[in-house]
Amino acid sequence: MSEIVNREDLDFLLYDVLKTEQLLKTDRYAAYDRDAITAILDTAQNIAEDLYWPDAAAIDAEEPRFENGAAITHPSIKPALAAYAEAGLFSAGFDEDIGGMQLPMIVQTAANGIFSCANISIQGYALLTAGAANMLNAFGSDAQKAAYLPPMMEGRWFGTMCLSEPHAGSSLADIRTKAAPLGNGRYAIKGAKMWISGGEQDISENIVHMVLAKIPDGPPGVKGISLFIVPKFRLTPDGEIGAANNISLAGLNHKMGYRGTTNTLLNFGDDGECEGWLVGEPHQGLRYMFHMMNEARIGVGHGATMLGLAGYLHSLQYAKERPQGRQPDNKDPNTPQIPIIEHADIKRLLLTQKAYVEGAMGLVLYCAQLVDQAAISSDEAEQKRLGLLLDLLTPIAKSWPSEYCLEANKHAIQILGGYGYTRDYPVERFYRDNRLNPIHEGAHGIHGIDILGRKVRMHNGGAVLALREEMQSTIAEAEGIDELSNEAAALRQSLDTIAATIQSIVSAQDPQRELANGTLFLDAFGHVVIAWIWLMQGVAAKKRAERKTASAFTDGKLRAMRFFFRYELPKTDLAFSLASRMDQTFAQAQADEFTGSA
Amino acid sequence: MSEIVNREDLDFLLYDVLKTEQLLKTDRYAAYDRDAITAILDTAQNIAEDLYWPDAAAIDAEEPRFENGAAITHPSIKPALAAYAEAGLFSAGFDEDIGGMQLPMIVQTAANGIFSCANISIQGYALLTAGAANMLNAFGSDAQKAAYLPPMMEGRWFGTMCLSEPHAGSSLADIRTKAAPLGNGRYAIKGAKMWISGGEQDISENIVHMVLAKIPDGPPGVKGISLFIVPKFRLTPDGEIGAANNISLAGLNHKMGYRGTTNTLLNFGDDGECEGWLVGEPHQGLRYMFHMMNEARIGVGHGATMLGLAGYLHSLQYAKERPQGRQPDNKDPNTPQIPIIEHADIKRLLLTQKAYVEGAMGLVLYCAQLVDQAAISSDEAEQKRLGLLLDLLTPIAKSWPSEYCLEANKHAIQILGGYGYTRDYPVERFYRDNRLNPIHEGAHGIHGIDILGRKVRMHNGGAVLALREEMQSTIAEAEGIDELSNEAAALRQSLDTIAATIQSIVSAQDPQRELANGTLFLDAFGHVVIAWIWLMQGVAAKKRAERKTASAFTDGKLRAMRFFFRYELPKTDLAFSLASRMDQTFAQAQADEFTGSA
Repeated sequence: MSEIVNREDLDFLLYDVLKTEQLLKTDRYAAYDRDAITAILDTAQNIAEDLYWPDAAAIDAEEPRFENGAAITHPSIKPALAAYAEAGLFSAGFDEDIGGMQLPMIVQTAANGIFSCANISIQGYALLTAGAANMLNAFGSDAQKAAYLPPMMEGRWFGTMCLSEPHAGSSLADIRTKAAPLGNGRYAIKGAKMWISGGEQDISENIVHMVLAKIPDGPPGVKGISLFIVPKFRLTPDGEIGAANNISLAGLNHKMGYRGTTNTLLNFGDDGECEGWLVGEPHQGLRYMFHMMNEARIGVGHGATMLGLAGYLHSLQYAKERPQGRQPDNKDPNTPQIPIIEHADIKRLLLTQKAYVEGAMGLVLYCAQLVDQAAISSDEAEQKRLGLLLDLLTPIAKSWPSEYCLEANKHAIQILGGYGYTRDYPVERFYRDNRLNPIHEGAHGIHGIDILGRKVRMHNGGAVLALREEMQSTIAEAEGIDELSNEAAALRQSLDTIAATIQSIVSAQDPQRELANGTLFLDAFGHVVIAWIWLMQGVAAKKRAERKTASAFTDGKLRAMRFFFRYELPKTDLAFSLASRMDQTFAQAQADEFTGSA
Repeated sequence: MSEIVNREDLDFLLYDVLKTEQLLKTDRYAAYDRDAITAILDTAQNIAEDLYWPDAAAIDAEEPRFENGAAITHPSIKPALAAYAEAGLFSAGFDEDIGGMQLPMIVQTAANGIFSCANISIQGYALLTAGAANMLNAFGSDAQKAAYLPPMMEGRWFGTMCLSEPHAGSSLADIRTKAAPLGNGRYAIKGAKMWISGGEQDISENIVHMVLAKIPDGPPGVKGISLFIVPKFRLTPDGEIGAANNISLAGLNHKMGYRGTTNTLLNFGDDGECEGWLVGEPHQGLRYMFHMMNEARIGVGHGATMLGLAGYLHSLQYAKERPQGRQPDNKDPNTPQIPIIEHADIKRLLLTQKAYVEGAMGLVLYCAQLVDQAAISSDEAEQKRLGLLLDLLTPIAKSWPSEYCLEANKHAIQILGGYGYTRDYPVERFYRDNRLNPIHEGAHGIHGIDILGRKVRMHNGGAVLALREEMQSTIAEAEGIDELSNEAAALRQSLDTIAATIQSIVSAQDPQRELANGTLFLDAFGHVVIAWIWLMQGVAAKKRAERKTASAFTDGKLRAMRFFFRYELPKTDLAFSLASRMDQTFAQAQADEFTGSA
């Protein structure tokens, strides 16, 4: 079996759990049937196995070099992305009428996941470019779209998002980059941007930076942030690549992982005028950026999931092949050693990975499907409902896989033992790569505040209600299936606990007290959501088993579901209880208490 | 404050919690008083700050090189260990009558911890040497001790332990290295040893390998393992360094962390006769090795703890200095940003680290003190009791810090955000270093089987009973203190849960079912032990506050204790419940269920 994708599982999630075939019956996606999607996934798998995976260790070992102000990347990265471009995948998400593939988001996600699993630090360039292009497509003027979208959709120009600055990572209210108006939508950009992935590289012909900056005399804080297109090379009047735009690479960050993706400190306008072009209205930059951010956040969760999958599949294969030791009741050293997959604790480490990774994958694909549902719906109330679901689930889809698929990678190392701790095996790299995901696109703590301070309250709790209804429909289905009734009851109980917890928190009217346990709440809420995703998978597995016959595949799905409900879901009681009573044990700690001195 | 040690906390643990001054009143340790110990810790701190810490990042970046069959280490390592030797610390644990410092184990542990915190991969060489020398001292002949101990105690010769082989990491029953008798206790050693830390280096004059091998025609499995001294260079008749002993370096392992410590694949006797000298009786090798292993296991937990401390102190300092954002109830971007330590979620990440690290440190020092108590006791029953306590606590002292101080390092990275993910800051290195600790000296799963299959049963449950009595005495003390009564009650409850859990498991008479949840049991048992250590610290903090006055230090101790009891201890309910009913959800998984194919 491939070590970068379990196609049977992907098909199960797409068709048995998430009913992608219904989507394909709509006008918007009529160009695709199941065979066409299979062909796309085949192509993705071939490119990923041929060009993304083989040099993954070398790309990690030889991180980008800073030479004469340029970033030199590993030579295997460019051809891999060229093949990705050649397959048309840079344009996958765009409408046909502008030259895109108009592929459902759920299929794009499935295909991109195969690349991320094979080599997340190559795929980073593609995902950033898609995000920047999507934002341009949503908010750019016709002229801007005409100038920038085609080369980005062809994968000739790449995109970035430039938010953070050296002194302001999480706090965008405090960014200092300035945009001085020059007339006709043209601005002089001046400032430094930090942590810019793909900010400089030697792969694409041009780089389209989407930059947040402040126009003088605008409102303070986040209300004064505007969005600009700032290309590495200016465009000539006929849209060709022109003069350099005075963006200088001040340094490359040397990271623990994700080392194929350059990560940069950029100075805009230090050596001469740096031109930026206002996107949309002034002072609306943060709103526009969040359009991309939400997509990027789910993308982070997806990347975390794929790294989890990579570790899971690799450690599973190792566990099947490595002989070591005997069962506890066999003390006879003359008997042959058994493959380590026969040891109970190795099974625990594997089933935990499966429960985390395949649960996270179900959630990410579910979120993608919400985007598709919104794209085909013409009903305003339905669109609002889908939007609420997506808003509520975004912090979870970002954070939960970042936490638990990192944990999965920890388990993958453990299965390989000493070998797993060496660079001769890929699992330590997955673990290093994945440690980024709880940090970027909003650290966990930010999402804890987001979900508890905003998402559960918005529209009078409408998002939570919408999610509750979705879950209740799965529960109702599961209640009718003998083998799933315990899990259905447990999830129903969790829904009540969540409702009671939110009720007691939002009534406190004291933001600082209420939000203290935001991260714990986020984590526990995420566990309930993943339990629901597993219940959906349980229902689908039972149906498949009835339709065809029970198989190792469906048995495994049901086992992983039961494992999650028995070993994981009960952990949420403590977090909900602490969040509910707004425990302030840590929140009231004084700075000098930690060591006893200031 | 120093970023490698909190001396106030060390003093608190030594004197307030663990009553080291009583130890110093005994004949054995009469040479030391509190001032003398302070001077030793000062020396340790000075050497560690001057020679261990400054090049830690460089030593990590420039890992050992394999050149012409030799291992070339970073040039800063040798002078650091020379200073450690100069201070007499290689001899710290040995009796005065053989030229040692005869320092209590608890003080050695405190001092060595400062070095490990500053640079664990330098300190590895010293700890391995002490372990090998201790084993020699315990089981070697007078001639062997006379030949090898003095240069090891002077730090001129280093030691290693050679157990694992490429095909046998955890399963020592299956080692293949052979020892063919040559007469007079001399054997020809032939075989390959894998994962040998310090197995080759260019630091010490000689290397004393303690090698497990099988004498032909011995019993199969672990009962046929013998222990040999196998020096890199043979000794001349007058004890000087002689000819090379045909041990060849087959390769260096390239690790994720701990990169200053060479880790080797060694071939014994490939290029000519490799001489080994039998230690003690034939076929008793595993028993001798376990003498060293138990010490080494607590050493691993101690190292994990010190890496946790390093991350904690560094991220704490960062959190105090880094301004970012505002409180949730302050939306005014014109107000100054606050240091991130003021954010509730940063406090959570810090207090969690404190609770894990200072809890683990208390446990490791408690274990060291058990060794000291045994050394001064002449009462056989008391020695047996101390031995049982140490046996029971060893898997916990090894595993719990390895798990939770790694988690602490994860939190340290999170506090630094993007910076924490770069090699410009040390926290990512601590995290990489610490990932080794759940693997070596017995992986978690091995210790889960050890504690549940052996330790809780031995001497009719005598070890658990002895620990229970220790805990009950702390509980009784805490019950008399108003602010600690909730925690005392919670710990009492946990003791009952442990007793009931063990009862239901050991009565099952089915090793495979019983041991399935061993790792979960180990983890939960560890949490209860750490809760007890925190209750001890709580009692000591209250007493100090009464004796002097409440301070930020004692407030912090009480807060961390409450945090552990509120946020951590309740997690054990689930694990004990699953272990108690011997849940087999994962244990019964079939290999083909994981992906649906074989």
